[in-house]
Amino acid sequence: MNEHFDLIVLGAGSGGLSAAQRGARLGARVALFDPDVLGGTCVNRGCVPKKAMWFAAQIADMHRLGREIGFDAAPLRLDWARFRALRDQYIAGIRHRYATRLDLAGIRVIEEAARLVSNDTVVTAKGMQASAPHIVIATGARPRLLDIPGFELGIVSDQIFALDAPPQHVAVIGGGYVAVEFACVLNGLGCQVDLLVRENLLTGFDLELVEALAVQMQAHGIRIVRNTQIKSARGQPGKVTLDATDGTEHGVYDSVLWAVGRVPNSEGFGLEALGVERDEHGHVLVDAYQNTNVPGLYAVGDVTDRKALTPVAVAAGRALADRLIGNHPGVTFDDSAIPSVVFSEPPLGAVGLTEQQARARYGNAVNVHTGRYTPLLWMVAGRSEQSVVKLVSVGEARKVVGIHVLGPGSDELLQGFAVAMQKGLDWHDLKTAIAIHPTAAEELLLLH
Amino acid sequence: MNEHFDLIVLGAGSGGLSAAQRGARLGARVALFDPDVLGGTCVNRGCVPKKAMWFAAQIADMHRLGREIGFDAAPLRLDWARFRALRDQYIAGIRHRYATRLDLAGIRVIEEAARLVSNDTVVTAKGMQASAPHIVIATGARPRLLDIPGFELGIVSDQIFALDAPPQHVAVIGGGYVAVEFACVLNGLGCQVDLLVRENLLTGFDLELVEALAVQMQAHGIRIVRNTQIKSARGQPGKVTLDATDGTEHGVYDSVLWAVGRVPNSEGFGLEALGVERDEHGHVLVDAYQNTNVPGLYAVGDVTDRKALTPVAVAAGRALADRLIGNHPGVTFDDSAIPSVVFSEPPLGAVGLTEQQARARYGNAVNVHTGRYTPLLWMVAGRSEQSVVKLVSVGEARKVVGIHVLGPGSDELLQGFAVAMQKGLDWHDLKTAIAIHPTAAEELLLLH
Repeated sequence: MNEHFDLIVLGAGSGGLSAAQRGARLGARVALFDPDVLGGTCVNRGCVPKKAMWFAAQIADMHRLGREIGFDAAPLRLDWARFRALRDQYIAGIRHRYATRLDLAGIRVIEEAARLVSNDTVVTAKGMQASAPHIVIATGARPRLLDIPGFELGIVSDQIFALDAPPQHVAVIGGGYVAVEFACVLNGLGCQVDLLVRENLLTGFDLELVEALAVQMQAHGIRIVRNTQIKSARGQPGKVTLDATDGTEHGVYDSVLWAVGRVPNSEGFGLEALGVERDEHGHVLVDAYQNTNVPGLYAVGDVTDRKALTPVAVAAGRALADRLIGNHPGVTFDDSAIPSVVFSEPPLGAVGLTEQQARARYGNAVNVHTGRYTPLLWMVAGRSEQSVVKLVSVGEARKVVGIHVLGPGSDELLQGFAVAMQKGLDWHDLKTAIAIHPTAAEELLLLH
Repeated sequence: MNEHFDLIVLGAGSGGLSAAQRGARLGARVALFDPDVLGGTCVNRGCVPKKAMWFAAQIADMHRLGREIGFDAAPLRLDWARFRALRDQYIAGIRHRYATRLDLAGIRVIEEAARLVSNDTVVTAKGMQASAPHIVIATGARPRLLDIPGFELGIVSDQIFALDAPPQHVAVIGGGYVAVEFACVLNGLGCQVDLLVRENLLTGFDLELVEALAVQMQAHGIRIVRNTQIKSARGQPGKVTLDATDGTEHGVYDSVLWAVGRVPNSEGFGLEALGVERDEHGHVLVDAYQNTNVPGLYAVGDVTDRKALTPVAVAAGRALADRLIGNHPGVTFDDSAIPSVVFSEPPLGAVGLTEQQARARYGNAVNVHTGRYTPLLWMVAGRSEQSVVKLVSVGEARKVVGIHVLGPGSDELLQGFAVAMQKGLDWHDLKTAIAIHPTAAEELLLLH
């Protein structure tokens, strides 16, 4: 039997949920397929548990700072099992609310993988068949596994959330935001961390701030080794040595975290046979309206070649539902300046162009204003590490095309400035704005 | 002998320093008079030491939260004397940098009070006489003292920074931001706090958020007593009982902090004889260009009837110097929507109109969007207290006229949104903006 819907969504992560919910609210009969739990990467294996761990590391960091300013206390120790249980309980609550909301919205949730058999029909292993004029591929991505000897001696980010005890001496392999965030979190929680980076740290972020972050990470005790490609792991679980292509040896580690990129979930469910175009990494190619090259098939979120961030997937899912179900043909979303934060210690935030990108695009019309300051509490503690704020602007009016911030508070201060940038922020706006004193945020107004 | 200058500034606080520095940079010969240390209230007795204490309280609060999520540690105890010494050292450093900067700018600093003998001449007790075509009154304000029996058994905010040991059971008397901030900080640092409020808490802030803050303060153990006017204090230092006008008795307290408002420093240095107009509280009246009613006399900062905030004083001082010395006759600053943060626990931020003010001004054209959520880490800890974000907008386009935020992160997230509001922020801007997830700041984008 074939069931008919107005909208079929494959994947119940951030992008799929937003498309399904928005579609249902606009009156569509929606079927949502996912063999896994609701919430996808962000809720279960990404942003949410990661942020909880970041907060825990922040508490430990603040505690160390506290001891420097006169608090009398022994070092903190985290009970990983207890913290994990609380975190899992919180996440289960989110999933429960999702389930309730899907139910209230009348969305049909099928806890199975669906396979595309045509551009309007899917089937499941248990034999369900469903059709709709619109099918949204929102199957997300997963950590990349490497085909090298001993890879199985390490874990990937999905698995780190299941640890019930802290690593003692851990190698984090990778240079992207997942690697940097876990290196900082684990270091904050008292682990000894080596960060082994093939080439550069945080490609795509402003070089100057990335270097400033690296200096602080090293000051906190993280050993950063660049230009090192790991070719194999050996030993046994809990006692792992890593070999690099240049002949160097790293370890022995009791834990190894491979954070070597993510691969889209775009294989094995029928995209190939339907001729859905993908890039060389397997990302589904979409246009500004989330259309694939096959009529009736759309894609949102990490499975696509767009920026792999939850809010981008959410915006794409909503815009798509508005367009397909709400009959607003022109609806899309502006992805020209997507803000993002690396939850490192300290956090690093960016929106718009880096200095390097701006110079490549605008040449001599680029102005760069950089401010460095030591945060108030660090000064009190006698620390000298510096936060950095950088404003990249263009032309005589110094229209702001990029904002980059490193330091405590960067995680929360960036959002409003990103909204202001979208409104056409320029230098004069910042110079005439009234500061909030004393904050990290005001430093963007105090540049000269 | 009379010395001639282009600009005379009375008071080396935030407003006076900014007028003097900007004036000197524009080429003026500047004389700066202050009998006290450089930096005024903000640096020595206000924002800076207060924020340092707020951070210390945050560390203690985070530590408590840490214990709830699985950190194994004993309660923290702050060594007040050590913390004070570190804080004082930091502040001495700021003053030293100010002194260096004034010296480099060629500003003549006279460590004496100056008295106005005419609208272009001042004299000091030691006999110095100085004249300038422009004299800026930037003498600031001080804590209000009450003429009631036993007032001397308590202290005012200036003195709290000199404490070398924590109060055990403290009464904070007042309902303004100084009272609320110290009530929260002292509570956070382990003191038992009664907050005795004559009428309302935080008049001028949005009622709904103030109430939400009060609920959280009470949940943290602060006893808030409203509609209570203290008429006298009795006992002895370290053992003080307070009597209210309604016959109730409060205490015994080992410490009493009077935070009952601030009075401008506008008396005793010649303003009266020159006929400088002041309001009933003694604030010097100024127009949008900081002019007093007497030609050649100007005023900036807390001595005026403008909003008593450091960044406002700084903006006023700079704009005034640009106008007087830089010959930009039209220069002023936009004080229509000044953002501010109460460093309570959790912090409360506001810019623009409250819901109440907007309804009074725009009636039915007002839209209010309020969001409540429990922050991620609190959820993990099993706490249920809620952060609140409120957006006040007007008309069909829902132009934003007020933003109000309560909760962790509010201190840093507001600034950028205030800048966006100044750029004409409306509902559509927030709905099309891409969030940074998971943050407190994104909640302003998630309102519906």
